[in-house]
Amino acid sequence: MTTTATLTDTRTFEEKLDLFAQVAVNVGLGLKPGQELVMTAGLETLPLARRITEQAYKAGASLVTTLLTDDAMTLARYEHASTESFDYAAKWLYDGMAAAYASGAARLAIAGGNPELLSKQDPDKVGRANRAVSQAYRPALELITRHAINWTIVAAATPAWAASVFPGEAPDAALAKLWEAIFKASRVDGADPVKAWKEHDANLHTHAARLNEKRYSALRYRGPGTNLELGLADDHLWLGGGGTAKNGYYCVPNIPTEEVFSMPHKDRADGVVTATKPLSHLGTMIEGIQVRFEKGRIVEAKATRGQEVLQKLIDTDAGARHLGEVALVPHSSPIASSGLIFSNTLFDENAASHIAMGQAYISCMKDGDKLTDEEQVAKGLNQSLIHVDWMIGSSELDIDGVTATGTAEPLMRGGEWV
Amino acid sequence: MTTTATLTDTRTFEEKLDLFAQVAVNVGLGLKPGQELVMTAGLETLPLARRITEQAYKAGASLVTTLLTDDAMTLARYEHASTESFDYAAKWLYDGMAAAYASGAARLAIAGGNPELLSKQDPDKVGRANRAVSQAYRPALELITRHAINWTIVAAATPAWAASVFPGEAPDAALAKLWEAIFKASRVDGADPVKAWKEHDANLHTHAARLNEKRYSALRYRGPGTNLELGLADDHLWLGGGGTAKNGYYCVPNIPTEEVFSMPHKDRADGVVTATKPLSHLGTMIEGIQVRFEKGRIVEAKATRGQEVLQKLIDTDAGARHLGEVALVPHSSPIASSGLIFSNTLFDENAASHIAMGQAYISCMKDGDKLTDEEQVAKGLNQSLIHVDWMIGSSELDIDGVTATGTAEPLMRGGEWV
Repeated sequence: MTTTATLTDTRTFEEKLDLFAQVAVNVGLGLKPGQELVMTAGLETLPLARRITEQAYKAGASLVTTLLTDDAMTLARYEHASTESFDYAAKWLYDGMAAAYASGAARLAIAGGNPELLSKQDPDKVGRANRAVSQAYRPALELITRHAINWTIVAAATPAWAASVFPGEAPDAALAKLWEAIFKASRVDGADPVKAWKEHDANLHTHAARLNEKRYSALRYRGPGTNLELGLADDHLWLGGGGTAKNGYYCVPNIPTEEVFSMPHKDRADGVVTATKPLSHLGTMIEGIQVRFEKGRIVEAKATRGQEVLQKLIDTDAGARHLGEVALVPHSSPIASSGLIFSNTLFDENAASHIAMGQAYISCMKDGDKLTDEEQVAKGLNQSLIHVDWMIGSSELDIDGVTATGTAEPLMRGGEWV
Repeated sequence: MTTTATLTDTRTFEEKLDLFAQVAVNVGLGLKPGQELVMTAGLETLPLARRITEQAYKAGASLVTTLLTDDAMTLARYEHASTESFDYAAKWLYDGMAAAYASGAARLAIAGGNPELLSKQDPDKVGRANRAVSQAYRPALELITRHAINWTIVAAATPAWAASVFPGEAPDAALAKLWEAIFKASRVDGADPVKAWKEHDANLHTHAARLNEKRYSALRYRGPGTNLELGLADDHLWLGGGGTAKNGYYCVPNIPTEEVFSMPHKDRADGVVTATKPLSHLGTMIEGIQVRFEKGRIVEAKATRGQEVLQKLIDTDAGARHLGEVALVPHSSPIASSGLIFSNTLFDENAASHIAMGQAYISCMKDGDKLTDEEQVAKGLNQSLIHVDWMIGSSELDIDGVTATGTAEPLMRGGEWV
């Protein structure tokens, strides 16, 4: 449509950033007047964090508190602090965040950090720090995974991230290109971004509804290096797009989002699966992941790069070796069709079907929050301090849905919905 | 000493910043290995905050958590949020800080913000926000005022602050001059800053010990616009320089510090006192303060500029109209002899004798922490949500000490110790 194209082309970067902040606050977060907002952001995402702050106050926020983090300070710890000290996390701060959520605050995270920040650091320190933070943040994270509050994650381009996505470009050009890719993937390049999000959200709900009608007991994956039967949790629910949090506010928790997702049964995965994209975890790139499952448990894990970090990750706790999420994304999603490897889970997981090791989302189990912990686990819910997505989809992946009676129905062929 | 001068002159800015960070961590804070550090800093003080982070880890910090604040985000609230929302503060964050202190964390604040940041904002909003933050921060502040933990405040030069101190200079030159003034006032310009601090600290302890021997019941101030008799609290203690916190760690809570200070009796001030320097409070400059006390209470308050903010301040609560601190500083202190008006309490209070409205420091009462609240108040301790210092010293101020039997003894003449 000409009008759209004209509008898009004539918008300045500042105007796009402002529209993006509006989408983050009004679509992603669904912030309500009088609501408090807790934001986390790296220093290099400050321009977007400031715009979001402004839009949040315009939307009626009572207070926006932004916890800014600085890569240089993080690296100073790795350079100078003792290994043992990495078992220590700021529990007082994470408990504070949990208290904020419990008292009604919304939560926005800006992603976009340097995907290689910690790649040269001692994996033992990285693992200890991650475990300590995961434990300290658990009470707060539970309020997120239970969807007690409205929350969202958006991304901002940063020089280091841009360099990893566009390695051949000059720094300024790479940064500008990454911003354009983020705006496009986040659907802020059209005439009416908020309307575009409403339509897209409705589509995702339609896909999820169809899968929920089918009530498959398992999914069967076939592709290069992948031959996996993945059982779904009893009373699993497929979700996609936005949803209403328990505080009554509708939010879209990931901007962008292209996935419909559900809960695997923690004890029902068998076979081999190979990652189709690299995973950036705690500042290290893990490439060429291949794992083998037996009765839901990872019994073998390999990576062509970052093997040690992968090993630490699945050794975090017992649940780290089991699955907590399964998600389907068509290979023709706007992010995949950009042809870019973002090396950032928020984007790459929306470019490809994926699975996640670790904690499951209770919202993916019908009436799950009315069950006891024991009942949830008996139906297949996985518990862990971690939740790490990794990409297994490609144009060569076929997926069947397996009904309760054992019939296989084609679901995706060559990475696309059948 | 030639060696000193040579060393000083040949140090680069980065070397001086590093020495300053060492003084902040090892003299100011007295950080101990394994101790956590909670730091607050404005974004424009980032270069110093990073150096301090590095020095803290070198000194064995288990974790440094820095709460960075951004002026643009603060101003966005004043521009877009409703007046009522200013009654709201991030209690979850301040409770978290109190929990950190209670669990053994040290506390460092970097001062140096824009002294005029909020001068154009609605004083009603400024007052509401201040009251809300004061209430929310009270549990944490009490751990500071009771000296439960080791803590310190240092300053960093920022462009806005530098412009207000050196209005005639180009921005870069002003910033460089302010940094030099901070380094000098903070005694990091000599050959061995840590040794210089030990000597200076011993001098302050000597002055305080002499005043404690005298046990004056009141001080009498005479100067231009000032005619005040200020009663001291029963069992008051004079303090100066560093002290050992209840966690057992020795710290120097203000860098720089030139004052010896004690606790006034909240109901025993009578007469008129005139400020000799402007007070920057919550981003507004208050100039030409003159107040009249009757039986310890401010019954009249005037200012030639910022009158409304002053009025809000003393209306915060009942204790805001009574005194919580009295401090003596010779007019020849290094900060005063710089001839600069820093418009920053950390510096200006160390350039001149001063008094503070609001909360008293319990450490300024002998065995005060063993008394009940009622007993403390009966001896003259003032309680309030605020503690705001303002400068009354000058080269024209004379101060007498009045003994229990009513004899007046000259203490300071023309702003100098007798």
